[in-house]
Amino acid sequence: ELQLNLEQIEKGGYDHFMLKEIFEQPNAIRDTYRGRLLVNEAIVKMAGVEDNMKKFLNAERIIVVACGTSWHAGLVSEYIFEEFARIPVEVEYASEFRYRNPIITEKDVVIAISQSGETADTMAAIKLAKSKGAFVFGVCNVVGSSISRETDAGAYTHAGPEIGVASTKAFTTQITVLTLIALRLARAKGTMSSSDYRLHLQELELIPEKVEKTLLSDDHVKEISAIYKDATNFLYLGRGFNFPVALEGALKLKEISYIHAEGYPAAEMKHGPIALIDEQMPVVVIATRKGHYEKVVSNIQEIKSRKGKIIAIVTEGDVSVKELADHVIEIPASEEALSPLLTTIPLQLLSYYIAVMRECNVDQPRNLAKSVTVE
Amino acid sequence: ELQLNLEQIEKGGYDHFMLKEIFEQPNAIRDTYRGRLLVNEAIVKMAGVEDNMKKFLNAERIIVVACGTSWHAGLVSEYIFEEFARIPVEVEYASEFRYRNPIITEKDVVIAISQSGETADTMAAIKLAKSKGAFVFGVCNVVGSSISRETDAGAYTHAGPEIGVASTKAFTTQITVLTLIALRLARAKGTMSSSDYRLHLQELELIPEKVEKTLLSDDHVKEISAIYKDATNFLYLGRGFNFPVALEGALKLKEISYIHAEGYPAAEMKHGPIALIDEQMPVVVIATRKGHYEKVVSNIQEIKSRKGKIIAIVTEGDVSVKELADHVIEIPASEEALSPLLTTIPLQLLSYYIAVMRECNVDQPRNLAKSVTVE
Repeated sequence: ELQLNLEQIEKGGYDHFMLKEIFEQPNAIRDTYRGRLLVNEAIVKMAGVEDNMKKFLNAERIIVVACGTSWHAGLVSEYIFEEFARIPVEVEYASEFRYRNPIITEKDVVIAISQSGETADTMAAIKLAKSKGAFVFGVCNVVGSSISRETDAGAYTHAGPEIGVASTKAFTTQITVLTLIALRLARAKGTMSSSDYRLHLQELELIPEKVEKTLLSDDHVKEISAIYKDATNFLYLGRGFNFPVALEGALKLKEISYIHAEGYPAAEMKHGPIALIDEQMPVVVIATRKGHYEKVVSNIQEIKSRKGKIIAIVTEGDVSVKELADHVIEIPASEEALSPLLTTIPLQLLSYYIAVMRECNVDQPRNLAKSVTVE
Repeated sequence: ELQLNLEQIEKGGYDHFMLKEIFEQPNAIRDTYRGRLLVNEAIVKMAGVEDNMKKFLNAERIIVVACGTSWHAGLVSEYIFEEFARIPVEVEYASEFRYRNPIITEKDVVIAISQSGETADTMAAIKLAKSKGAFVFGVCNVVGSSISRETDAGAYTHAGPEIGVASTKAFTTQITVLTLIALRLARAKGTMSSSDYRLHLQELELIPEKVEKTLLSDDHVKEISAIYKDATNFLYLGRGFNFPVALEGALKLKEISYIHAEGYPAAEMKHGPIALIDEQMPVVVIATRKGHYEKVVSNIQEIKSRKGKIIAIVTEGDVSVKELADHVIEIPASEEALSPLLTTIPLQLLSYYIAVMRECNVDQPRNLAKSVTVE
């Protein structure tokens, strides 16, 4: 095939940029922690954090401002920062933050997350936070972008260029950077035992391999996609660290397949959304072990008793959920706080294959821009 | 009609408890502020707050724990407390809060909201917060309920018994109580000017009349409902104080009509959900004046250019939105922070009429219980 055009070459043999970028994640995560995660020395090294350690250690609150997928990465980091470093975190939609009169002082650290580094609402939120004296730390992918220049300090994700409008590797590398920061702060604050800290460094280093292993579910996810491609609605459920992953999984499906998908914390189901469940409704449940497994199993039972279809993301070797769910997708075992880096992978693939089967323009979904530079 | 049975008598001539309870809101709000809102003396008087004023004034954070509709009332109160009393507020799903290791100290005030006062997850969250030394304040409707007994102090809503499973008057009276507390704290902290404080007391007193006026849109909302009753999906958008109202409006429709409705902060649309918009998608937009009106108008233009159908909640006398929207429902002008008490009314009616037209069991929707006493 000598007819490959430039775009096909750039896609590296994949049908779409999105699929290429999904499969790039093991390397993207590795590139993001390279030189920062020094397992043998038990060190996390990030200049932007070291140079401003006082600001971080004195922070009464961390306020994350972001939009869309980056906002979901921020939500994951809320759980991680609070658990590891015991600093209260508030995650704000940049668009909401900037238009109220937010309570913010010099004692606050604001973390702004944006793949492109050009998101208009996030940029405006940064300017507002700076005007109130807060220290603003940026997490961007595009080097030299407006946000990376406007912030007081920052750490880049090293995901490489992301072309697909639906963000994938930007999300997992954002979580990687935020996890590294949380581990560094946990060490500095002494909020994590030395053994736990070392364990998490080791486990984070192994994540790229585990993502590779998770990507082997590709064909299986494709089969599941074929069954549900004509669904008009989806629900996505998760708890704890994986609640934001449920939101992100639903957003992916919305963005590229135009199916109305919604994420929810699993336990909130019974306060309303469970009314939607019938035999037409596929429900994606993140039911990895540790993550309040028994509670999630009971949520799954409730859905099955209303005839909903269950696609469950489970830990390798799972037994209980397998008996209940219509389909299971296995991921390797990992520390719970790191599991979003794995659970998110099959959800990306699911949205990708469903969109392809619906003949949607995966890389350029209708109505959406890659970088939202308008308000 | 001498054949009226007991239930019909209890419904006071309305077809359903839910409709009766929607129409009871002017009196329910009045009953809730009676004896507490003393406009002439410029005083807010609530024993549970006065007796614990020190706790409130020393609070570094207010953490709201709740589920479902009560969680939405908590989100509204986040905007109100932060704006009026300048205390940072974090709103947590009770089910998420209780299963992590939340950062909470004796310096925190926890507000637990529950209509029934029996919500299991909220109860567990309260016990956890107490064990960490936090002061816990309850906002319940049912007198003598478990949560009202377990909390350190509290303030009842005086909504009267709520029978319909989909909460209506409980929501607006919860917001009323939380607004009163925020005003009391604003006064004590000096974070609101005296004239602004008085203005808000006066305006709050007028809310029941304005709710009555809003309820006159009943027939108009019924007509709109007839047009969209067969829709399979809805989006609800709002900004600022009315972002949580969008979530609550969507929840109502889900609960009783089984239509998949989702609420979003309006500006987040362009980060994904706008891909869903086509001529099949009705979008309910809260576009009252003041609430970043121009921004919302531009969101409406984006939706119209993708052929979405717009049902807009606007302020009396509105011009710009009227030109763009397919349908407008007017509410009386009010202070922005109090507007959720008005904007929520047509959304309740919309969900009610759509559910009735779809022949759903409005008062006893499938799969749902009035009071969720299981985890």
